[in-house]
Amino acid sequence: MMTTDLEIICVGNELLIGKTLNTNAQWLGRQATSLGANVKRITVVQDIVDEIVNVICEALARKPRFIISTGGLGPTFDDKTLQGVSKALNRKLEINQKALTMVKQKYEEYAAKRPVSTTTELTPARVKMATLPEKAEPVGNPIGTAPGVKVDLEATVLFVLPGVPSEMEAIFCETVVPLLKQSTGGMVFYEKSMFVDNMMESRLSPLIDKVMSNNKGVYLKSHPMGAENKPHIEVHITITAGEKDKPEEKLSRAIAELATLIEENNGKAILS
Amino acid sequence: MMTTDLEIICVGNELLIGKTLNTNAQWLGRQATSLGANVKRITVVQDIVDEIVNVICEALARKPRFIISTGGLGPTFDDKTLQGVSKALNRKLEINQKALTMVKQKYEEYAAKRPVSTTTELTPARVKMATLPEKAEPVGNPIGTAPGVKVDLEATVLFVLPGVPSEMEAIFCETVVPLLKQSTGGMVFYEKSMFVDNMMESRLSPLIDKVMSNNKGVYLKSHPMGAENKPHIEVHITITAGEKDKPEEKLSRAIAELATLIEENNGKAILS
Repeated sequence: MMTTDLEIICVGNELLIGKTLNTNAQWLGRQATSLGANVKRITVVQDIVDEIVNVICEALARKPRFIISTGGLGPTFDDKTLQGVSKALNRKLEINQKALTMVKQKYEEYAAKRPVSTTTELTPARVKMATLPEKAEPVGNPIGTAPGVKVDLEATVLFVLPGVPSEMEAIFCETVVPLLKQSTGGMVFYEKSMFVDNMMESRLSPLIDKVMSNNKGVYLKSHPMGAENKPHIEVHITITAGEKDKPEEKLSRAIAELATLIEENNGKAILS
Repeated sequence: MMTTDLEIICVGNELLIGKTLNTNAQWLGRQATSLGANVKRITVVQDIVDEIVNVICEALARKPRFIISTGGLGPTFDDKTLQGVSKALNRKLEINQKALTMVKQKYEEYAAKRPVSTTTELTPARVKMATLPEKAEPVGNPIGTAPGVKVDLEATVLFVLPGVPSEMEAIFCETVVPLLKQSTGGMVFYEKSMFVDNMMESRLSPLIDKVMSNNKGVYLKSHPMGAENKPHIEVHITITAGEKDKPEEKLSRAIAELATLIEENNGKAILS
């Protein structure tokens, strides 16, 4: 079974200057992984068209099955992601009638609810949200205004999602999840954790090596939670597999093996 | 004055699968920005040597003044960052005597404090932490075991830091900050925020454009906190400048201008 490689691109100065913690990338990484995808890379770039172009061209050249971008889809001057996508793909930006209808409907809904302070006028800032690269497909935004965008390319499906977390999550669940599931074909990510006390990571390391080579497909990674000299270590044990491969059994076997080795070496294994 | 471009590279599957929130990138982005650097890109990659090689080569080709990597420096098999750096730079990995002394001293200190459970033996996993690319310089880790690494290249200084946040932060403050300050030469980042109620982002957008074009060097970015139809928007106003450029005055002027425009358009400007 081929792996479903996926890359995440996050557009926004606020992520680079540390104003905003990149919870979108974590959320997307977790969701995509749990559905069996192999998240290869996360790239964060500035709100600069040529930077966005470079990052998208580089990602496309690696031919992941999916690229998901977040951010830069709104009505303001610094929402430049679609300009970047358009230039990267060498496709003109044009008003997409389907997208324009979506945006228009949103403002009519808003105005119906709050008639005083809201106009339905399609200002340039609003039309901007419906201006997509040629042959791109707008994707309904269940809870916000700017539609998401889907572009089918030869090796890759590119999704362009907004940066507001609730909107990004809603579009992902509605539109991206079914395609991801289809692509990973029932592969799922399984994970367990155990903890190790009284053993430095440098002494735990060869034991993990041993268990990994005995348990093909199972990945173990140690995460020191204390310091090397006051060790408290989480070992995260994962596998991406179909259910018929009995992944849960494989994880349990690896954990039992590691726990035995740890106890034999005077460490303390804590199974959670 | 030339800008001091900086890239951040984070190595670790745990960041890609969404197990761990990338607080390191945020912390580094914030620190570097506040010291006047221009953080261009954050890239997160898997614990795979060739992936690390690619990301480092790509970053070096963009010639930022600094590259800071985090993660993959410890004693375990999946700590592969130095292998990646070595291959990217085409420099052999070799035991660095200065680094070995650092590591040895750490284990002697640990053993002196906890004589029963700790040995000072330099096992392969421990020697690994002192195995650096040729001509790399180990950098003292004030609170952990694995030394950081500094590599001076033609256009770029590359820092390789551990992924444990407290260790990464300690090395950054001790070793990276003085070099960054020297490079940015007194440029500092200034920021203020204001909030806007009762105005959709699509209507605020042209007002922001106007203020930006009237106030050169000042950057305004709107961050919707509510939804487009129940708008509560933060406007983040920033400038990177030397003190003689009176950055605080420039920020205040831009804020006052934007507040006036907002009130003229029936919005509510809230100065914090």
